[in-house]
Amino acid sequence: MKNTFGNSVTITLAGESHGEAIVVILDGLRPGVKVSEEAIAAKLALRRPSGTVSTPRREADDFRIVSGVFEGRTTGTPLTIIIPNTAKQSTDYETTRYLPRPGHADLTALIKYGGFQDYRGGGHFSGRVTVGLVAAGAIAEAALCEYGVKIGTHIAAIGPVCDRKFDDLGTDLAGLAGKSFPVLDEDREEAMRRVIEEARLDRDSVGGILETAVIGLGGGYGEPWFDTVESVLSHILFAIPAVKGVEFGDGFAMAAMRGSEANDAFVKQKGCTVTATNHNGGVNGGITSGMPILFRCAIKPTPSIGKEQQTVDMKMGKEAVLSVGGRHDPCIVHRAASVVNACTALALLDLMTMREGNAPKEIG
Amino acid sequence: MKNTFGNSVTITLAGESHGEAIVVILDGLRPGVKVSEEAIAAKLALRRPSGTVSTPRREADDFRIVSGVFEGRTTGTPLTIIIPNTAKQSTDYETTRYLPRPGHADLTALIKYGGFQDYRGGGHFSGRVTVGLVAAGAIAEAALCEYGVKIGTHIAAIGPVCDRKFDDLGTDLAGLAGKSFPVLDEDREEAMRRVIEEARLDRDSVGGILETAVIGLGGGYGEPWFDTVESVLSHILFAIPAVKGVEFGDGFAMAAMRGSEANDAFVKQKGCTVTATNHNGGVNGGITSGMPILFRCAIKPTPSIGKEQQTVDMKMGKEAVLSVGGRHDPCIVHRAASVVNACTALALLDLMTMREGNAPKEIG
Amino acid sequence: MKNTFGNSVTITLAGESHGEAIVVILDGLRPGVKVSEEAIAAKLALRRPSGTVSTPRREADDFRIVSGVFEGRTTGTPLTIIIPNTAKQSTDYETTRYLPRPGHADLTALIKYGGFQDYRGGGHFSGRVTVGLVAAGAIAEAALCEYGVKIGTHIAAIGPVCDRKFDDLGTDLAGLAGKSFPVLDEDREEAMRRVIEEARLDRDSVGGILETAVIGLGGGYGEPWFDTVESVLSHILFAIPAVKGVEFGDGFAMAAMRGSEANDAFVKQKGCTVTATNHNGGVNGGITSGMPILFRCAIKPTPSIGKEQQTVDMKMGKEAVLSVGGRHDPCIVHRAASVVNACTALALLDLMTMREGNAPKEIG
Amino acid sequence: MKNTFGNSVTITLAGESHGEAIVVILDGLRPGVKVSEEAIAAKLALRRPSGTVSTPRREADDFRIVSGVFEGRTTGTPLTIIIPNTAKQSTDYETTRYLPRPGHADLTALIKYGGFQDYRGGGHFSGRVTVGLVAAGAIAEAALCEYGVKIGTHIAAIGPVCDRKFDDLGTDLAGLAGKSFPVLDEDREEAMRRVIEEARLDRDSVGGILETAVIGLGGGYGEPWFDTVESVLSHILFAIPAVKGVEFGDGFAMAAMRGSEANDAFVKQKGCTVTATNHNGGVNGGITSGMPILFRCAIKPTPSIGKEQQTVDMKMGKEAVLSVGGRHDPCIVHRAASVVNACTALALLDLMTMREGNAPKEIG
Repeated sequence: MKNTFGNSVTITLAGESHGEAIVVILDGLRPGVKVSEEAIAAKLALRRPSGTVSTPRREADDFRIVSGVFEGRTTGTPLTIIIPNTAKQSTDYETTRYLPRPGHADLTALIKYGGFQDYRGGGHFSGRVTVGLVAAGAIAEAALCEYGVKIGTHIAAIGPVCDRKFDDLGTDLAGLAGKSFPVLDEDREEAMRRVIEEARLDRDSVGGILETAVIGLGGGYGEPWFDTVESVLSHILFAIPAVKGVEFGDGFAMAAMRGSEANDAFVKQKGCTVTATNHNGGVNGGITSGMPILFRCAIKPTPSIGKEQQTVDMKMGKEAVLSVGGRHDPCIVHRAASVVNACTALALLDLMTMREGNAPKEIG
Repeated sequence: MKNTFGNSVTITLAGESHGEAIVVILDGLRPGVKVSEEAIAAKLALRRPSGTVSTPRREADDFRIVSGVFEGRTTGTPLTIIIPNTAKQSTDYETTRYLPRPGHADLTALIKYGGFQDYRGGGHFSGRVTVGLVAAGAIAEAALCEYGVKIGTHIAAIGPVCDRKFDDLGTDLAGLAGKSFPVLDEDREEAMRRVIEEARLDRDSVGGILETAVIGLGGGYGEPWFDTVESVLSHILFAIPAVKGVEFGDGFAMAAMRGSEANDAFVKQKGCTVTATNHNGGVNGGITSGMPILFRCAIKPTPSIGKEQQTVDMKMGKEAVLSVGGRHDPCIVHRAASVVNACTALALLDLMTMREGNAPKEIG
Repeated sequence: MKNTFGNSVTITLAGESHGEAIVVILDGLRPGVKVSEEAIAAKLALRRPSGTVSTPRREADDFRIVSGVFEGRTTGTPLTIIIPNTAKQSTDYETTRYLPRPGHADLTALIKYGGFQDYRGGGHFSGRVTVGLVAAGAIAEAALCEYGVKIGTHIAAIGPVCDRKFDDLGTDLAGLAGKSFPVLDEDREEAMRRVIEEARLDRDSVGGILETAVIGLGGGYGEPWFDTVESVLSHILFAIPAVKGVEFGDGFAMAAMRGSEANDAFVKQKGCTVTATNHNGGVNGGITSGMPILFRCAIKPTPSIGKEQQTVDMKMGKEAVLSVGGRHDPCIVHRAASVVNACTALALLDLMTMREGNAPKEIG
Repeated sequence: MKNTFGNSVTITLAGESHGEAIVVILDGLRPGVKVSEEAIAAKLALRRPSGTVSTPRREADDFRIVSGVFEGRTTGTPLTIIIPNTAKQSTDYETTRYLPRPGHADLTALIKYGGFQDYRGGGHFSGRVTVGLVAAGAIAEAALCEYGVKIGTHIAAIGPVCDRKFDDLGTDLAGLAGKSFPVLDEDREEAMRRVIEEARLDRDSVGGILETAVIGLGGGYGEPWFDTVESVLSHILFAIPAVKGVEFGDGFAMAAMRGSEANDAFVKQKGCTVTATNHNGGVNGGITSGMPILFRCAIKPTPSIGKEQQTVDMKMGKEAVLSVGGRHDPCIVHRAASVVNACTALALLDLMTMREGNAPKEIG
């Protein structure tokens, strides 16, 4: 398992921030899914930094699909995407090899790998590696789209500034598509950007909350023990470096409700049985109900900050002071939205395939 | 893997609320771990309902270890525990076979299994099945204990009533051990119990928040992609029926912090490198740092309530009204604490074993 | 993994020869498969020893399905079967605790488990554990049968006595069904039984070869790397204690052929593309072709023999002489046929489900 | 798992014969294992065709390690190797797109993937893909070598010509190392090469048998159900395209033995308990005994032959005649030896790591 996720559709992720490339292999796909390089490039563009709200490291994110696609469609065999690292400046990191950056994985990596890890820019722990998730997720989204499933994420909060809540999901998700700073209420965007800019000027960073909705997914996906929809989604979401909390439906707010408030009553609507409310976020007993799936992720502030921080020089064995150089993001919440969408697509496609299989639908 | 969890130490869980028994198989254990039936019974007692804060269904929770233990120690081969269901009253449920209970998995199970599921008392989705988790978790806790790892959970909140925060973890975890209603500040317990009692009298239910700490676990456990400590823990925690949110360290509160607040500075303490604060809850980059692991789970209010609720008669295809009979809990937060501890032990033992292997330490 | 096999339909096996019971959990089954306890009992009867060709240990093989079946059909949740051990005579083994029996797993178990293993009667390594495979396999066979798949195994050889080859598979498999000593040419049976009787009288044992055919399975099952049909079948077949060789189609004989002999030409037959011959045993590139699957397993002679053998007293650390007491089989080839059929069903159902999914076909 | 193999050390394999590259990701390795690009190149050279006994397609097999190695050692994070395909001549295959080649996976791939597969040169089913196994296996062999484990394979037979049997394994394995046509008795090599040359001149092909020995591996590896050493090895060996049979120790010959012949008596030798013979090939009850592991693989004759063969035109739906053009091997047995060694190393490293873990041994 480890660096592979999924049962029926699996993703294997490799690469380091300053290595030659990020590599991702997606296996178990149904043959015949149309693959658009433009669509993948568009998703990668959403993750790519831009403007002053992001790091000045600017990767072109050129990618090559080197296996698993033939004549524009998935073959059903493992699909490999290679995304070269081109804009790396490894000298940035050499002076801080033995100075673990607070909030990062530098020290835990040193303990885990005994000093053999590629320490440059966080190595395999770098947010750079999420480029592979986004590329693979673009293919998973395309596969889900053929079944009418749509995924969208908005920035629910940056620091103290909140977006409005989801309203009509069809309209809202359509509006979010293609936005690199996805908010529902554009009036709040400016305030959010100001919070980020202030942090940047203070050589500091900010976090936020992402809220995701999935529509069009039928009922019956997920497993009672242990591969519930919440389990499988949270598993991959918590692998995104900055995610420190995940809640479904009303989540932590349900802790303060009574059952009579939190339960979603069943009603008939256009001949179908649906729930009148959706406090449970489309999942009951770990299984999708056919209602929209709703969840939120807490994104911690980017650990890389220019401010001085206290650390320990692991070579000299004594305390030291560190001011993180290199190029970094005052906020990654908006960029993380594309990663959350990708992870959501990968997890749900896995659960769908577990139930539906992956036999080809058409004969070529 | 569906009903199996884990890579190196795996748990497979089977059984239905009104079937003959709950069965759990634990595999991958190191041979030679001492197994105490008294310790398992004590853990099961913590999960068992008692008093008016819990359901009147009272299972004896007699259990039998039928494989994998020999002369009082684990053999290293699969360990099976069978916990018979004895106090089932299946007639309670027959009249409501086609009336899915709001907040429960009745409808999603019907969709998933096409009507073939054992619907009685929630069947395989019942909280009753967690008795298998607690039994298996007791063995995992014993295995971790041999390495000096200790786990404890307190009720951080019941409805609006909050417990105090963790302080000295060694003392606090010792104080929580063996408590069936685990709170740190006993003055709050009475207020919590009152909240539950009020809900019970209203034929309603309440939820809450559980907070867990793990001490004594060294650094270096967990994997960067995708089996981070947070991923693996949240995977099994979200399989607990009522859990709707999981956060690590300061969790959702980190979304409103700046990097300079959220980062944990490294300092030297008694010759070791530790962090001055623990906002990240003992995990960075998905890997344990050696600091205490801290997380919180949101527990939704028990869906079974006596109040009338709206539902749909799935046989007749029309709306109906339901008042859940049978025996149920006005609150399961306190009982869930033992399940959270068990799941924590299972997940961490898996991650430890992935790194350390499971070769026997002594030769008999 | 370890004691669990399968990706989409998984079997987890637990228990020891002299423990309370053998336990098997089958997960991932499609809901709605009819489960006949009589059919399971009939399969267990084929594995059960009878006559002088088998051990005098006679287990009743009473079994209980304790989860996963409701109103006579699979629910889709984990199906647990418990088969109690009743005819154990553990005192047989105490005197030989430290005298590993040649050809058995006694010494390797001691090394692996460091002395903590249940040594009585081979413990978890005992052929007794295969009773769980046969019980679970009976359910897998029923599930396959709904798709028209049939499995049959004959004794191709006992010592030097060979059965005739498969001819018309439909007729041959029908003829083998229900036979506890499955041979195609009944004239050879007597000679085979004589070989076994001679070995028994010599306090020795004999081995043999089993040949299996599967008909009715369509094309397209299996995966190129690494879950080929041959890989998955051999994986579970080699877990049967006495199997030391597995070959598909013409197997080892293909090593001496030329390509022009070994290749199976494609021809049209009743509108379908089939192969004129079946040297490849129904599998090409690891994928089923729709032709019958054919394979053979080498079964080594039962290691338990009454003759004196040289061993080492592991407590005293010096060489010793052992004459295996207890009850044992002069030949297990005929009994192994039912185990091979069960394993074949489990492996093929897993591969089918990986491709077809496990959604229910009918709504109840 | 499909295109991923292993529990604790996993290999994921991607790529097609005429795609851009073969890609392999190796995960779960212990950090700090020395990686020599020369050693990998040397192993690839053994697999590479040369002389008239092999195909004229000559790939340079340049490879790049793009992740998981830093400063000459494994980091412990996923190790990716990319081997570009450079010598592809895809036009060779276009005329035969709808003419499945007998003995190949062309038809089964068409059924499985519904026509979406990359059909050129066998696509993902091509023997070309084994270059990834050999590259990954070279790293696994290096990791095993640090524990003193050595693996070697000789050509036991080409058609009717047999090599001598293994004698002193230490000497024999040393003698085989680096041989591209590995035979123990060089006098037989000439006769074997003649058999191949005759087949080539007949536009035909020949098969053979490979025999492998592993020395230096301690006891206690493998699992009773289902991951026995034989199960795990055969699983990966049967994924090698031409393997149609696998036997351990005396294998099929044991079927004709009596127990008293087949059992390996235990004796004391230099203070250790060993077996006087090794009919069981170093494995009992699925667990290594510490004796050498011995097994044999049947390699079918290369299916690509120049002779005319009968097939079916899948587009026209009628019978047709095919003479396989392109470049192919009259024999691949000698080349397969390097693949068998690689697969053996991968499987055994996985089993060792499952027991021993993968924590780093030194701190850098």
